[in-house]
Amino acid sequence: MEGMQDLPPEPRVIAVDIPGHEYSIHVHPGLLQQVGNVMRRITRTRKVALVTDSTVGELHGPGVSETLRSAGFEVVPATVEPGEEHKTIRDVEKIYDQLLEAGIERTMPLIALGGGIIGDMAGFVAATLLRGIPFIQIPTTLLAMVDASIGGKTGVNHAKGKNLIGAFYQPKTVLIDPTVLSTLPLEELRGGLAECIKHEIIRDADGFHSLEENIGKALALDIPYLFDLVAHNVAIKADVVETDPFETGERAHLNFGHTFGHAFETVSKHAISHGQGVALGMVAAAQLAVSLGMIDEAARGRIVALIEKAGLPTGGIKLDADEVLKTMQFDKKVTSGRLRFILPEKIGSVVIRDDVPEGLVREAIGRVSG
Amino acid sequence: MEGMQDLPPEPRVIAVDIPGHEYSIHVHPGLLQQVGNVMRRITRTRKVALVTDSTVGELHGPGVSETLRSAGFEVVPATVEPGEEHKTIRDVEKIYDQLLEAGIERTMPLIALGGGIIGDMAGFVAATLLRGIPFIQIPTTLLAMVDASIGGKTGVNHAKGKNLIGAFYQPKTVLIDPTVLSTLPLEELRGGLAECIKHEIIRDADGFHSLEENIGKALALDIPYLFDLVAHNVAIKADVVETDPFETGERAHLNFGHTFGHAFETVSKHAISHGQGVALGMVAAAQLAVSLGMIDEAARGRIVALIEKAGLPTGGIKLDADEVLKTMQFDKKVTSGRLRFILPEKIGSVVIRDDVPEGLVREAIGRVSG
Repeated sequence: MEGMQDLPPEPRVIAVDIPGHEYSIHVHPGLLQQVGNVMRRITRTRKVALVTDSTVGELHGPGVSETLRSAGFEVVPATVEPGEEHKTIRDVEKIYDQLLEAGIERTMPLIALGGGIIGDMAGFVAATLLRGIPFIQIPTTLLAMVDASIGGKTGVNHAKGKNLIGAFYQPKTVLIDPTVLSTLPLEELRGGLAECIKHEIIRDADGFHSLEENIGKALALDIPYLFDLVAHNVAIKADVVETDPFETGERAHLNFGHTFGHAFETVSKHAISHGQGVALGMVAAAQLAVSLGMIDEAARGRIVALIEKAGLPTGGIKLDADEVLKTMQFDKKVTSGRLRFILPEKIGSVVIRDDVPEGLVREAIGRVSG
Repeated sequence: MEGMQDLPPEPRVIAVDIPGHEYSIHVHPGLLQQVGNVMRRITRTRKVALVTDSTVGELHGPGVSETLRSAGFEVVPATVEPGEEHKTIRDVEKIYDQLLEAGIERTMPLIALGGGIIGDMAGFVAATLLRGIPFIQIPTTLLAMVDASIGGKTGVNHAKGKNLIGAFYQPKTVLIDPTVLSTLPLEELRGGLAECIKHEIIRDADGFHSLEENIGKALALDIPYLFDLVAHNVAIKADVVETDPFETGERAHLNFGHTFGHAFETVSKHAISHGQGVALGMVAAAQLAVSLGMIDEAARGRIVALIEKAGLPTGGIKLDADEVLKTMQFDKKVTSGRLRFILPEKIGSVVIRDDVPEGLVREAIGRVSG
C-alpha cells in the first residue's frame, strides 16, 4: 500500500436528486484549475459572471478567471466587500448593478467563488436576476463546502435577523477543491468543523466517533483527510436535502444548534461568528436535551468535548437571555408563535420539539452565558 | 330567457395545472366580500399580510380587511406608493421592513390587493421573505386579472430595464371580482384590453372576431360582459402558462408586442403606459410580420383597427430608433445577442423568430414613431 497516496486521488461525485433539479457535487483536489473545462461541458454561452469578495478574489480570482478565459469565456466580474455586515439587500443591489451594466443574458451562468456569505448572496442574485439564471457554486471555505453550498438556500440578512430574505434555488453544479483549504484562516476552518460535528450528531454515530479520533488532522490541514471529511459531509447534507428540498420537515434537522446559534450571533451583533454561534448553540441544545431527559450527561459531555477539541467556544459568552429569546421569536423557524428546537435523542439522531418550557430554554442559554 | 341575468352568476373556476404548484383562479362578481371565508378555507394561520398601494388601499382596503377580520385573521398591512416608478428593489425593502417589523411567520399568507405592479412586487416579496411564504393574488385592474396575476412572474424594475429582477413564484390561488372594474379609470381598462387583444391574436381567431364586435361593451363597463371576457382571457393565459411555466419555450408567445413595448416604455421614461407600449408594440410587430411576408395588409389592418377601437395608440410616438434598439438588447428575452420577436403567421397564431434583419426592425419602429 506504500506510495498509494502519491497517486492523484479519484474525484468523488455526490448526486443530489431533487425532482426537476438534479445536480452533482464534484469534490477533487486540483479542481480549481479545471473550472473552465468543467464549465464548457455544461454551457455554450460566451459570458460567465464571477461573483466573489475582495479577499477570495485576490487569492483565487485570477486563477479561476484564467481557466475560464482559456475555455473561451468572457468573464463578467462582480466583487463585494467581505463579511457578514455586507450580506444585505443593498449589497445584492450592487451585484445587480455590476452584472446588468455588463449586459447579461438569461442563459449566462453565474459562479459564486467564496465562502458561505458569497454563496448565499450570489445564489440570491442568480435566483432573482432575469427571474433566474444558471448558478454554479465554487465554495472556498470548509463551512461553504460541507454546508452552505449544498441545498439551494440563498439569501441575505435583514436588521430583524439572519437570512430573512432569500429563495430556494438549486445550483447546476457544485465544484469543490479541498486544496484551497490550505490558505483558510484557522478560525474559518473551525467554523466549518462546527457543521461537520453537527452532521455527525444528527445522522452518524460512527462518524462522530471517527471525528473524535481524527479532528486533529483537520486542524493540521491534512488535505487527504480533509478531502475525505468534505466528501463524507457533503454526502450527509445532500442526503438530508434530497428528502426535503423546501425544509417542510426532516431538513429542519440541519438546524441543530442553529435556533440558539443564530440568536447568539444576532444578539452579539455578529461579534460571534456563525461557527461559534452554532458551537454554542449545540452546547445549549445538548443541555436542553439533558434537561428534557432525552440524552444523558455522558452524551452531552462528548458533544461538548468534541466542540472544544475543534477549538470552538462552549460557554462564557455575555448575552442577555431575554434578548436571545426575543430574537429567536423572529427566527424563520418559528411556527404559530412556538419555538421549535432540534434536539438529540442520542448521538447520531435528532428530533424536532416545539413543546419546550421557556424555563428550560433560559437554563440552556444560561449554560453557555455568563 | 328573460330575467336570467338577474340571477347571481355561477362562479368560474379555472385550474392552473403546473406540476407541484397546482392552483385555481376564481372569477366571481362579489368575490371581494368573501375574501375572509375563502382564505379560511385554505389556511389556519392567525395573521395574514395585506400588501396594497395607497390608491387601491383607500378603495378596497377597508372592505377586504373587514372580511378578513370577520374570518378571525389579524391583518398585517403593508402599503406602498402607487406607480411604476415605485416598482423598485428599494420599495420592496420597505415592504420587507413593514412585514418583518410585525413579526411574520413562514406559514402566514401574503395577499396582493391591486394592479399588476402590486402583484409583481408583493409576489416578489412573498417569493423572497423567509425563502417563500404562501401568496394570494386579488387583482383589481383588468390588466392584472387577465395577465399579471396568472403565471407566477414576480419582480421589480431596474434602471437598466423592466422586471430585470424577479422570480417565478406561483400563487396559492387568484381571486378575481369583476365588479371592482366599475371604479377602474378608463386608461387602465384600456391597458387591460391591450392584453386581451394580444391573447386573441396569439391563440383565438374567433375570440378576436368576437372582441371586434363587442369591445364597446367592455369600454362601457358592462360587468356581465367583463365577467365573460375576464374568464375567457384567464383561460387562455392559464393554458399557455401550464404548458411552459418557466418560459423556456411556448410561453414566450405571451410576449407578443412586448419586446417592442417594453423598449417603448423604457425609452419614453414611462411616459407611455404598459398598455400603450404593448399596443404600439403589437402594431410594430404586425408591421414586421407584413414585411417578412407572414401576414397580409388586411390582417395587419384588423389588428390596428381593434387596437384603435380600444382607445389605444397605434402610432405617432416620438422615440429614437437607435435608443429603442439598444434598449431591446437589454431586454431579458435576448438570447446570445440575437433579438427574438413573437410574430403572427395569422390572427390566432404566432411564432418565435430570431432571424429578423435590423433594417426591418427599424422600419417597424418607424411605423409607430414620428
